[in-house]
This record gives sequence, structure tokens and C-alpha cells, in this order.
Amino acid sequence: MYVPMLVHDFLHRAARLYGDKLAVVDGDNRFTYADLQARVNRMSNALLALGVKKGDRVCILSPNSHFFLESFFGTSQIGAILVPLNYRLVAEDHEYILNHAGVTVVLADREYVSIVEQIRPRLRTVEQWISARQPTHEATAEGWRDWDEWVGAASAEPPPACSPELDERDLVSINYTSGTTARPKGVMLSHRSLYLNALNMIMHLGIHHDDVELWTLPMFHCNGWGGVYALTGVGGTHVVLRAVDAGEIWKRIERERVTFACMAPAVLRATLDYPDRAKHDVQTRPRFTVAGAPPPSAFIERLEKELGWDFMEIYGLTETSPLLTISRPDHHTKKEDWARRSRAGVQGIGVEIALLDDEGNEVPCDEKSIGEVCARSNVVFEGYWEQPEETAKAIRDGWFHTGDLAVWDETRSIHIVDRKKDVIISGGENISSPEIEDALFQHPAVLECAVIGVPHEKWGETPKALVVLRPGAKATAEDLIEFCRGRLAHFKCPTSVDFLPELPRTATGKLQKYRLRESFWGEGTRRVN
Amino acid sequence: MYVPMLVHDFLHRAARLYGDKLAVVDGDNRFTYADLQARVNRMSNALLALGVKKGDRVCILSPNSHFFLESFFGTSQIGAILVPLNYRLVAEDHEYILNHAGVTVVLADREYVSIVEQIRPRLRTVEQWISARQPTHEATAEGWRDWDEWVGAASAEPPPACSPELDERDLVSINYTSGTTARPKGVMLSHRSLYLNALNMIMHLGIHHDDVELWTLPMFHCNGWGGVYALTGVGGTHVVLRAVDAGEIWKRIERERVTFACMAPAVLRATLDYPDRAKHDVQTRPRFTVAGAPPPSAFIERLEKELGWDFMEIYGLTETSPLLTISRPDHHTKKEDWARRSRAGVQGIGVEIALLDDEGNEVPCDEKSIGEVCARSNVVFEGYWEQPEETAKAIRDGWFHTGDLAVWDETRSIHIVDRKKDVIISGGENISSPEIEDALFQHPAVLECAVIGVPHEKWGETPKALVVLRPGAKATAEDLIEFCRGRLAHFKCPTSVDFLPELPRTATGKLQKYRLRESFWGEGTRRVN
Repeated sequence: MYVPMLVHDFLHRAARLYGDKLAVVDGDNRFTYADLQARVNRMSNALLALGVKKGDRVCILSPNSHFFLESFFGTSQIGAILVPLNYRLVAEDHEYILNHAGVTVVLADREYVSIVEQIRPRLRTVEQWISARQPTHEATAEGWRDWDEWVGAASAEPPPACSPELDERDLVSINYTSGTTARPKGVMLSHRSLYLNALNMIMHLGIHHDDVELWTLPMFHCNGWGGVYALTGVGGTHVVLRAVDAGEIWKRIERERVTFACMAPAVLRATLDYPDRAKHDVQTRPRFTVAGAPPPSAFIERLEKELGWDFMEIYGLTETSPLLTISRPDHHTKKEDWARRSRAGVQGIGVEIALLDDEGNEVPCDEKSIGEVCARSNVVFEGYWEQPEETAKAIRDGWFHTGDLAVWDETRSIHIVDRKKDVIISGGENISSPEIEDALFQHPAVLECAVIGVPHEKWGETPKALVVLRPGAKATAEDLIEFCRGRLAHFKCPTSVDFLPELPRTATGKLQKYRLRESFWGEGTRRVN
Repeated sequence: MYVPMLVHDFLHRAARLYGDKLAVVDGDNRFTYADLQARVNRMSNALLALGVKKGDRVCILSPNSHFFLESFFGTSQIGAILVPLNYRLVAEDHEYILNHAGVTVVLADREYVSIVEQIRPRLRTVEQWISARQPTHEATAEGWRDWDEWVGAASAEPPPACSPELDERDLVSINYTSGTTARPKGVMLSHRSLYLNALNMIMHLGIHHDDVELWTLPMFHCNGWGGVYALTGVGGTHVVLRAVDAGEIWKRIERERVTFACMAPAVLRATLDYPDRAKHDVQTRPRFTVAGAPPPSAFIERLEKELGWDFMEIYGLTETSPLLTISRPDHHTKKEDWARRSRAGVQGIGVEIALLDDEGNEVPCDEKSIGEVCARSNVVFEGYWEQPEETAKAIRDGWFHTGDLAVWDETRSIHIVDRKKDVIISGGENISSPEIEDALFQHPAVLECAVIGVPHEKWGETPKALVVLRPGAKATAEDLIEFCRGRLAHFKCPTSVDFLPELPRTATGKLQKYRLRESFWGEGTRRVN
């Protein structure tokens, strides 16, 4: 019997079996699974009442919140496609994304309404404006509907069946991600990909019914790495964290008896370094899952030895739903193998990983031959929204090419050492080097420039600009950084600028970024974090 | 990206990542995953050399063994369909199944060669005869190839890609099961069904990388309930048990550090009642998964309190891959709720369960309204082999009708109370009442008869014959039981016979079996085990 695998079925099961169990904690709001399903149904019916049809795009711009969680299921139940926005972007980024995706409904946290207002006249396809208010927020802005009033008027019954019927290859979300191009690309993720990714999260990270997950990870990040679906699937409890703050993390771990969290290394560090740790009486033994970069192995040791908690490293991209590989103690890796445990790890169930050279041949498993990490799996995306030429570059010969370069260690764990593509990953966020270079080139003093990732203690990597000034022109590092901050989201701006007489180029004039990176990453083969 | 979900990919991953890890223990044989993959590849190549093509049927008649385990992957890799046979059947049953399935290759354990020889002249489609020898077995019989010699001559390289390419809806196995008809029906199971069932086993039974599974369950039983795939998927260790024996079970649990086993309640009982338990120094804490019938709740209590081991009940059918529901402690069910924990449990992820009345309406969740257990899920089979009319009876209006009758308890756990179809489940084996009735009717003294399941302390249920003798004819209970043993597999034969003056019938002459069953199942609503 064929039954399409649909991500909202995870919620249906939890609501049917565990209606009276705590599903979401968001500030003073505590919703059971019955509450959550009812709110999700109201949202679906309210979207239908606005005329939203299968395939229509609905975006959300919000920090973590119960509204955000509801929006995943409220849209997918009726076949609408969610576009989760990175709230760290600037208004112009959102303008590009909303117009590119053809978004018709904007959902925005009250605090982010003003950023949308800046670009509202230029949003060509948006018809509806909904604003979600937390109790501490000011009144709903003019020209916006209040989310709670909007859904309050709608039925809590399940929405009518989607027509035409949903299939598992239909899209759930379009997740814009920075990459090799100056503009972000829209990663199309299907029910099938996200469903199977959720099962892999449950299997490989041991997510279970009694888990209480602290949302240290932004939900916009690849749908919370699929945790939105995985945790709901097992009927666990979501504890929302609006903004990362070590004190708030510790408070919630203690109070809500948190057992699980996903994060970038910087959040792990902040948690470990929190000075008032001893004041908290933690009764659970949380499992921290880290991705975005491998943390220093000392962090893992501290987490497990000082706190007695558990660490797991995973690796993946938005294009892969995201889980590709996991690093946990196993047959080859002991708990104390901290260094290996910080690596990307081994392929998950249903994921095939190859390291391919430029000719598409597998590199040998010898701890030194470098190949591009390629994946064949149902978790690989359906393509970039309305960019078939970019899709064709990324998925060829049956493999998705991640752009990351790695070696095999003797356990078939991949160890990522470099990046083929022009992306810097800082604090778990993708930053496109060409986008920063585009901004710098607008400065009148800049003749040539190249932006590379350099090591950063807190963020793993940070953008550095190498600049050649026009003859006679003058600009300081501070000038150029400030110039970028006026044009780009702050997290994307270079944190340092070096001035060079010229940039290294090949005989044919091609920029040799790897040579620039060499001097910042030391002697080893590893040139990314 | 669409990648078909294929069950042999579970083995490919384990062999790639854990080639030097112990995969199989069978007597003195200890194979790593690299060994297992090599043996499986040799088998695939040897089958191809025999001319086996995609879609061809290969049967196996064997107790649990490493050969049996290999046959699952060796066939599926090349798209051949495995027909695992119940070794408790008699030669005539096998004759029917092999001819019905159109089997071309017979794989048989050496001890079962003689039973095949009895029917060999009447097997219309078989072309190849392979016999698997354990070290203690006598020499290979005339007219049979020795398995190890046969595969030894073949390459250990992966077999060439299947042509046409395999899809996830293609069949892996046809599992013959007794049911509502006198003849067993061939349950067609696809890669997709078995793959997703395996993921559900991993998720719901917590099967993990360090698990060591003792094969107390016959592998022919719905491909070992999918454990063949699930345990291989996580790279666990299979410990083969050729025949159930409490002493052997305890010995292996201790020696191999067993952590997991699946079984019928009778095996659980035998394990608990083994008199020399205290002689064994068990260092692990095994999880016992039981299905086939709910064990007395006292068994669960003994397992968990006396031994400190863990118990899980599941429910399903061969037609459902088999996992439909699981019963484990959760939000509603405490560890000490022994009575509830013996029930079938709640629907698994990706499984929708409904209890439907005769009009197809859902019965209320009130602990007393009885409905037929119906399932909508990818784990539901593709139909009965060459019996579309039987398929149409079982799968209608989008639901698979199990024939089991249940009530909801307040936790949405199903509690099976009766059976709509004429099946007796004794020691985990399906027995068809009509098949026994057919045999009894061949006795000259029998005028009318009805076979029902009655409670049995060891087997859960056992067949009882209610017989009306011809006027003037004479036969004792022993006569009729002996008569059946000459015609049926012994486990199917009635263990008692009652003689009645007439059988209860409706006004239109329809036999009222439920009235016959009433007197044996007491006052409660429950009339099955």
C-alpha cells in the first residue's frame, strides 16, 4: 500500500496519542499536543479563508516562537509552502527573497514588522500581512492582522483535504541559503526528504518520547534541522528559546528538565563558559548536538567530563534536509576519542557519501586524499527554486556536490578540511564571499578585493577582506567595515581587512583564493572550521 | 532527489562502515560484516549464474542459520523474490506453495532436503536445488548442490546492477501465511514496506549499534519481523539460534552478551521458567519484544522485576511487515502498568489505525465498543500473490482489514478482544480453521464440524474441534486427532475434540462460531489470545 509520507502526520499522531502531553513551552504559554493541533488547524483554516491554495508561498520572519512552530504544520497541512526567513538578514535581502519566491502571505513577529514595512511598497506579490504578538509586544501595527485574532476566528477542526491530493514529492518549504552566488538560493525541500530526515534524526540522535528539546537552534535553520518534525513525531516537548543567552539556557535546562538541544559551536561554548553554572541544579543529562562546524575537542571533553552531559556532532547542509553524517561513539570510536568525535562522522542510514575528485572518481580512504563531499540520498533537495541552472551545477551524475572538501579517516568518518565553494560559515550561518566582495567593490577606493574565511575562536570562521586600493586612494580597515555594515547584514561583514599590493592570480588571471587562505590556516591541510 | 529505498542498502552501509565488526554468530561460525557482504555477493553472483532474473522466486526452507540471513540480501540485491517457508509445515503444504509461487530455485537446510525429496516429482517450476550444510550435517544429497561449494565458485564482488533497475515498490519477498482460506496465501512485501518497517523497528524498539540480537524468532516469520533489516541497518550482531531451547537461550545470552530478542509468549515463558537460570552470569540487560499474543501480565512483571530485563509488546501481521502498534511505557503508561503493557499498544510512526464497525465507521474510544483493527500505512503489503480477489477483500476503502477485533482504551492503545476471521494463533503460528475442518470432513464418521481456538496456557490458543458424528458412526477424540496428524502439520492439529448433537446455526443455516467460543472464553469480552 502506498501512503504518501507527509510531515504533518507527525503532529497528527502526537495529537491523537498524546493530546494531554506538554508539546510547547514558550514563555508563559504551555500548550499540549491537543492545543498545538487545534492552533495549527485554525491556522490552516485561516490561510484557506485568505485564499491560500496548494503550492502558494507563505513566509515567516520570526525568532523562535510557538507561532513559528505552528507555521510549519499549518502550511504543510494545506499544501502551502513555507519560506522561513533568516531574521539576521537586512531588509533588502528579504525584499529579494520575497519577490523571488513570489510570497503571497507574510507572517512576521511583531518586532520584525518594521523591517518588512521598509520594503513593503516593493514587495510585488504579497497580499496578506499577519503579525504575531508576544505578551510583551506593543499593539499590532497598522495594516497588519493580529495572528491570534486571525486564527481565533477560524475553526479548530482539521482543514478539508488538500486538492489535488498531496504527494510526498510536493514541497514543504523553500529555505533560502547563501552559497556560491551573491544572492541567496531557494532550497526546495519535499515531504519525502524532510520525513526521512526526521526519521534519521530520531534514529541517529536517539530522539525519544521523553525528550524535552531546548530550541537553542533557530527554527529558520533548515526547519530546525528537521527537529520540528522529529521531536513532534515522538511526542516530545519543545521548549522555545527566543534568543541565545547562556543564563536563559541554564535556567530552562534546570526548570524544564531539558534533555536535548541542537546548536552551533558558539552556543556550546557560551553554555560551557557561563559563570553561574553552579547555581543551577540540573536533574537531567542533556545531549547536545552540534553542527555548522566542529567544535574544539576540548569543548566535547568539558561537556562530557565536567558536566556529564553527552555530545554528538552531525554534518549536513540546508540542501540535504540537513542530516548527512553523524559522529557518535561506536565500534571504532570510543567516548574518549574527542578529536575524532568532533569530525563530521559517518553516513546516516539511507545516505550514501562519496568523496570525489575533479574527474568524478572516488578518492582513496587514506586520511590524506582530498575529495569533494558528495551525497546520494532521499534527503537531498529537489533543486533551487526557479534556478534550474544552479540546480544542474549542484546535482550532477546522480550526486549532490556539497562544495565541502574532506578526507576519509580509517573509520570511514569524513574529516572536512577545506571548501571548494566561496562560502564562509560563521557561527552556523552561511555567508557568501561574492556578496561581500560585491559590496566592497562599490567603495570608490577599492580596486580589487577577495573575501576569505579565517579562523575565529568564537564563530569558527569569520570573513576577512583582502583589498588592493586604487592608486592614490585611501581607506582604512574601519572605513571599509563600516561601509559594508551599511549594506549587509552585520553578521556578514568582514571583521578585519588586510591591504595588499596585488592579489595572487593564475597565469590566466584567475584569483587563487586558496593561496590567500594558506597564510591564515597554518601548516595543516585543514582550511575551514 | 529520489533514491529508491532498498533493503539491501542496510547491509551495504554496515559492510562499508563496520566491515570488521561481528555480524553473525552461528555455532562456531563468526562472520564480520565484510564476511557477510562477501558471502551475500557470492550468493547473488551464483544465482545470476544459474540464470535467476529480476522477479524470479527463490524459496528457502531452513531453521535459523547464517545461510537464511544471507538469502534475504543475496536475493534482494539482484531483484529476485525470496519465499521463506515455515519449516513446521508438511510436504504437501510446501508442494502447494512452491507450485503456487512458481519457485525456480529451492534453498534447503540439509535436514529439510528429505521433505523436499518427497514432493520433488510434483514441483512444476523448480530448476535448481541447493542444500546448506552445517558442520554436523551428513553429506550433500544426490541431486543437490552444496551451498558453500556453489557460492565458493562465485565472485565476492558486488553483482552487476539489476536490470531493469530496482524500484522501492518492487517485491522483496512473498511470505505465505495461513488465514481465512484453507490454503495459505502469499503476502507480497515490497522494499518500501520492509524498509520503513525496519526504520520503525529501530525507532520504536530502540534498536541500536551495540545491540546483539538473539534469534529466538524464526527468520521465516515475516523476515524475522523485519529484524533482519533493522539490526543490519544499525550494524548490530545477529546471534543465530537454530531451535528454541531455554538452556541454549540462557547460554547464548550470557556468552554473546545478548541485548535484544523477539519471540512469542511461549518462548518468554520458557526463558523465565528455565530451572538453571542462577547458573548464568548475565552481564547485559536484554530487551524482550513479544508479539503473536499478549503474554500474561505476570510474565512481564517477572521479566522486569526478577531479572531486571525489559519488556516490549508489539502487534502486527505478516500483511503489515509486521509492525503496527507498540506497547512501551510512555506518557500514559507507567512501567508498573503490567496489564496495559501486555496489550497491542499504540500506532507506530507512519501507521494509522482505525477500529471500524461493519459499516466502516470508527467506533468510539470508550473501552467497550468493538471494531475491526484496520491499518493505513506504507507497511501494508502489496496484495496476495496471484489472488487479486483475496487482496480486494483485505484492502478496501483505503484500509487493510486485519480481521482482529479490538476496543480502544483511554490511551488510544488497542486491546484485541476477538477475531473476525477463522484463524487460530497458537504459539505465534497462524492456523486456518477451515483447513482443519477440511481434514476432519474427510473422516467417514464426521457429519458436521467446527474448529475454534480455545485458551491454552502455553500456546495462548489451541485448536479444538466440535464434531457432530453421523448417525450410528463411531469415533473417539483420539481417532480424529490421529486422523488429522496424518494429514496436517502437527502444530495445526486439534488438541481436543468435543462431540455435540448439533452445531448452533442461524435461521438461515449459518454456523455461529462465536456461540461455540463463548463457553470456552468465559464471561469477559476477550475471546482470543
